[in-house]
Amino acid sequence: MDKFTENTIESKTIYDGKVVHLKVDDVTLPNGKTAKREIINHPGAVAVIAITEENKIVFVEQYRKPLEKSLIELPAGKLEKGEKPELTGIRELEEETGYTTNNLSLVTSFYTSPGFADELMYIYITDEIKKIENPPAGDEDEFVEILELSLDEAKKYVEEERIHDAKTNYAILYLHALGRF
Amino acid sequence: MDKFTENTIESKTIYDGKVVHLKVDDVTLPNGKTAKREIINHPGAVAVIAITEENKIVFVEQYRKPLEKSLIELPAGKLEKGEKPELTGIRELEEETGYTTNNLSLVTSFYTSPGFADELMYIYITDEIKKIENPPAGDEDEFVEILELSLDEAKKYVEEERIHDAKTNYAILYLHALGRF
Repeated sequence: MDKFTENTIESKTIYDGKVVHLKVDDVTLPNGKTAKREIINHPGAVAVIAITEENKIVFVEQYRKPLEKSLIELPAGKLEKGEKPELTGIRELEEETGYTTNNLSLVTSFYTSPGFADELMYIYITDEIKKIENPPAGDEDEFVEILELSLDEAKKYVEEERIHDAKTNYAILYLHALGRF
Repeated sequence: MDKFTENTIESKTIYDGKVVHLKVDDVTLPNGKTAKREIINHPGAVAVIAITEENKIVFVEQYRKPLEKSLIELPAGKLEKGEKPELTGIRELEEETGYTTNNLSLVTSFYTSPGFADELMYIYITDEIKKIENPPAGDEDEFVEILELSLDEAKKYVEEERIHDAKTNYAILYLHALGRF
């Protein structure tokens, strides 16, 4: 039972790109008036909290063009069409870190920015990972560096805002709350 | 010191809307090749964890057109040009809930989706709120319903995915970790 449903009068595609699909919808509001809604369609994404035998968390550092700086983040990537989130998680873990697992547990999922985008982020966790000999290549335009950090080191990076994104900040808080470290 | 910096060769504005500004940049990669980056520029946003005298958390339910359903979320809104995040937080709290405060503490901030957007989300907390007699009107195309929930009630909504967005899931986990409830 949804509150304040907005019905679409007209939907216009503005841009159909590799990652971002932008449309503008004319909608009717609960008071009978109309409004425009700018909407980004996104395939969704999966992030993995991967914990090594030494109790370190595996991160990747990469340049984020929208911010014009690099961030340290959980390994993550976009869902491919028809792909199950768990398989996306394993694929991205392999491509970005060279680790694999066959044991992922779902921590949570959330919309990253429901006001303008439908991107749904899944976060999985595993402490059963092993290095693979010939990791699959990732996207050819992606350059990442792997870091293995203790939770205390990661918290320091949160303070310094080198870890500074929704999925990764959530993961650090989750591990802190778990009290395992 | 940023890793793997991508330099802009050309930047093209695709759409300049009310919320969403989309550009596509041609960039040089660390290996000398080029790639396209689709980038959403966003003014940033502020969310407030507001706690009543009865130890309830104040939420708003609203329809989210990108998801075609309503979500229960922290009161939140976009930064206006030149506005300090703390003032955005107070303004949005007043407009959306009819409560005000003059005591906000920063909990954290994070980029919601750094792969394609520069939206920075600030989360503040206050347990010193009071109802105002004539709350200012919010955006005329925004319809919200106020809910005051205990942390346990909120956790149930997380399970049911009626609370299901980055800022609000983070806030629930934060309050859980705080152990105050």
